[in-house]
Parts: sequence; C-alpha cells; structure tokens
Amino acid sequence: MRDFEEYIVFKDLIEEHILDFLPETDPKSSALYEAMKYSLKSSGKRIRPALLLAACEFSGGEAKEALPYACAIEYIHTYSLIHDDLPGMDDDELRRGLPTNHMVYGEGLAILAGDGLLTTAFETMNRDMLIYFDDPVKLKRRVRASNEISKGAGCRGMVAGQAADIEATGKSIAGGLLDYIHLNKTAALIVAAVKAGAFIGGAPKELLTPLENYAENIGLAFQIADDILDVTGDENETGKKKGADKVREKPTYPSLYGLKPSRERLDELTGNAIETLAPFYDNAEFFIKMAQNLVKRTR
Amino acid sequence: MRDFEEYIVFKDLIEEHILDFLPETDPKSSALYEAMKYSLKSSGKRIRPALLLAACEFSGGEAKEALPYACAIEYIHTYSLIHDDLPGMDDDELRRGLPTNHMVYGEGLAILAGDGLLTTAFETMNRDMLIYFDDPVKLKRRVRASNEISKGAGCRGMVAGQAADIEATGKSIAGGLLDYIHLNKTAALIVAAVKAGAFIGGAPKELLTPLENYAENIGLAFQIADDILDVTGDENETGKKKGADKVREKPTYPSLYGLKPSRERLDELTGNAIETLAPFYDNAEFFIKMAQNLVKRTR
Repeated sequence: MRDFEEYIVFKDLIEEHILDFLPETDPKSSALYEAMKYSLKSSGKRIRPALLLAACEFSGGEAKEALPYACAIEYIHTYSLIHDDLPGMDDDELRRGLPTNHMVYGEGLAILAGDGLLTTAFETMNRDMLIYFDDPVKLKRRVRASNEISKGAGCRGMVAGQAADIEATGKSIAGGLLDYIHLNKTAALIVAAVKAGAFIGGAPKELLTPLENYAENIGLAFQIADDILDVTGDENETGKKKGADKVREKPTYPSLYGLKPSRERLDELTGNAIETLAPFYDNAEFFIKMAQNLVKRTR
Repeated sequence: MRDFEEYIVFKDLIEEHILDFLPETDPKSSALYEAMKYSLKSSGKRIRPALLLAACEFSGGEAKEALPYACAIEYIHTYSLIHDDLPGMDDDELRRGLPTNHMVYGEGLAILAGDGLLTTAFETMNRDMLIYFDDPVKLKRRVRASNEISKGAGCRGMVAGQAADIEATGKSIAGGLLDYIHLNKTAALIVAAVKAGAFIGGAPKELLTPLENYAENIGLAFQIADDILDVTGDENETGKKKGADKVREKPTYPSLYGLKPSRERLDELTGNAIETLAPFYDNAEFFIKMAQNLVKRTR
C-alpha cells in the first residue's frame, strides 16, 4: 500500500484517535487494556476506517463526525486478527512484524482482548447515538451505520467467511466457495465501512449502490492481493511468514487458479471498482487512488 | 433454581424464540450455525433474558416488545460461556451436563461461534431499532437498552471481570478484588439485562435506581451461590465437575471467607435485593421470588 495525500490525512486522524473510544482504564483490568492497546497500536494500514471517513466526506458529511464509527470498525478488524492468530485458529506467532497478541499476553487474555474490542466497537457506536437524541435525522443515520457494521462483521459477513475458511482448509474446493469465503471474510467488512460512512455523511440513495459495488470489488481485490503477497511478498515488508497459506493448506486464488490468472483477476476487479464510480469521477479521487494502490501494494 | 409461574412463562417465551434472531442460514456456513445453535439450545436457566422481560413489564411495557433484547442478552451470555470453556481459558469439557462447544466442533469453530453470537446480539438489537424509525420515543428507548447491554458486556463490565479473574487465578487476592471480579464477571450483565428491560418498558426515572440496586445485589448473590455450588453441589444437577474452582485455584467466596460466611453474605445480599424493591412490593412479585430462588438453587 503506497500512501497518497488524502489517505495520509485520514490515516493520521485515525492514529491520533484510535484509543479515544476505549472505556476508562480501571487499574484492576490493566492487563486487558494493555492487550487491547497492543494490537490497536501496531501500525495497521487503517484501510477500513480510512474508507469509512472518505465515504462520509464523499456523501456530503464531515469526516470528523464519523470518527467513532471509523475507530469502531478498526476495533472490529483488530479483534478479528487477534482471534485469527490464536493457536485454535491460524496459530500465528508474527503479525505486522511483531509477536501476535497471545504470544505476548497469553491465550486467555488474547481471547478476551478480542472480545473486549468487538464489544467496545458497539459500545462506541451506541454511545455516539446518545449524543444525537435531539437530532432524529442524524440519530437514524447512526443506527443505520451501526446496523451495517454489525451485518458485515457477523455471521452473514466476516465471521461466516472465517468459519467457511476453516472448514475449507486442507480440502480441495470449488471457485464458488472460494469467492464466498473471500467476499465474506474480507469484502463484507470493507463494504460495511463504506456504507456506514455513506450513511453518516447522509448519502442520497443513488450513491449507495455504486459505493457498495466499488467496495465489494476492492474488498475481493484486497484479499486476492493478500493471497498473492503470501506467495511473492517480502517478509520484511509484509511482516508475516511467506508461504504460510500453502503450509496451512489454505484455499487461495493462486493455489486454485495460479499466479498469473490471479493477477489478471485482481486487475479486472480493480478496473470494475473504478468503473463503478465513473459518474462521480470529479469527486472520487480518493477511491480511485485507493483501488489503484491496493493492486500495487507490497504489505 | 426452582421454577415459579411468572418465570416459567418468560422462560418458555425465550425457549420458543431463542433462534428467531439468528441470520438466515447459508449452507456454506452450516457448521458455524450448528455450533451457535448447539450452545443456544443447551437448556440454560435463561435468568438474564427472563429478568429483562420482567423488568420491561414491571416498567409498563409488554414483554413481547423486549424479546429481541432478551434473546440478544442470552446470545451474549452464551458466547461468554463458549469462550470461557476454551482450552486457552478454563479448559472445560462439560457444561450443563453436555460436552462443551469446542469438544464438539473444535477450537476454531468454537471461537467463531462465540464471536458470531456476540455480533448477532448487536445485529439483533440494531435491526429492531430500524423498525421504530417512525417512533422516536421507542427508538431512543432501544438505543439506551443496547447501550446498557454493550457497557455491561464490555471491558468495563463482563469482559473486565473475566480478565481480572484470569489474572487472579492461582494468586492470593484481597476481598476488594474478588468483589470487583464478581461484580463485573457476573453482576454487570444482570444489571444490564434489568436496565435494558426497564428502558424498553419506558420506566420512569425513579424506578431505575432501585432496579439497578436490586440487580447488582442478586448478581453478586448469584455468583456467590455459584461458588458455593462448586463446593457443595451435586454434579448431576449442576452439570459441571464438582470442585473445579479449587483445582483451578480460582478466587471464590468460599476459598477466601469459608462456606458459612459465604452463605451469610448470600442471605444478606438477597435480603438487600428484596428490600430495595420494598416501595413496589405490590408489583414486584417476580423479582422477589427470583431473588429467593437464587439462594435456594441447586443448579
């Protein structure tokens, strides 16, 4: 992922506020908070929250207004990585070049840090709704945003994809199932981020479908790029062990179709994503650059 | 827990609808749904959702209106049990007399079934809010209820208590910390259940504090009764291995204060809980019976 100006602005905003919505620290739970903060601060790409803020601005809102939801979606993404790395799942020791959460805090706290982050995401969104009790229009936008995020994160979204991924590991599967896995495991939360931002920004109806299509295309592209990086990437840049998917017998695009067709599919999806926003090109620079950069990313 | 008429009515309502709010089944995620349903159906006492429905009626609402929130809180309670039983936490093989979730579905799916249930709880509440977009008063009641549940379940509530519990295991701790653990691990979600029900029922302000005090007292009493049952209970009734807390060196009331003082504290808390509702005795029969029964429970 190469940085570009608008992305840096959003990324910095998220880095600055990522811990703001955690509940007050009680010293009796300091280990839990440390575990939660450890994974939150470990320099993720912040793609989902940046997309959420951009979608809010694109739809006519102010990015700052959407900050609680942007952080909430990063809490959800972060919890999913902590749980994914657990010995009972992918059993990873390294993430973004650092020891994974359970390697540092132990399995029990890592499970709870994930649970805590997931719950805090919804607590953050709920608390924000309370602020808008005198503004029914804005209150409803927030309820819609939270609803979208809960769907994208849940068991007809991300969790469904992860479960199907586990079930498929070590098996030879069909392309349809691989798409189901990728669409749910990765694209669903990216779609939710974009839609939630659009709702908070007060997007008119005609913006929602193009944005959703854009997000689904880059979400799928993002996972294919990830699969390709597992084969071709530089461990120093990805911060993960190379070839881990193959060792684990994970179903991936390159394993099912080969590298070249995977790269072609990636280009095609990126093209589709950009094409979708054609009627809005004057205003969609962030989204176009984001799509182009996801193809070229090295980490 | 002995059954009584009002409790049976609520419990039956929950048993009938407990699966109603799960997302539509996609065959590609059937293993995930099976794992979620397995733990949801395994005959829990349904105390939290029953309290939620009762609090809604007590506050002037109809119990049926609060059903999505009652099921949501049972989803949250159920996820917490699944994660609690994992090898990385309590490593339990038996729950309510049946093999625990990970013993049946494996660790990976058990983690995801928990994550799925937690997310579905918020999805259920969010979806219910959408129904009340034309009724701002009822919409706000629901936002408050969901907010209360997110606080009670999160990292200044249940998750905080579980983390402190893990940290304290095997150590000699002070009574203050044990109370912190019990109040958060167990009482916080019971308090949230009662407050959420009260919000949905439209409780006037003067009802909220007594209900909250009642719930905190029975919540603490419930955990102490649980600790005592671990020492004195009948495995056939509790469905758990006797003496497991001691083997695990868990901090408990009996281990810190002895059995007799624990029983006295249990009686005292039950008395306090009932006393709190004295001004409302004409209308509080459910809550009084519930408190009395928690003392006498054998499972």
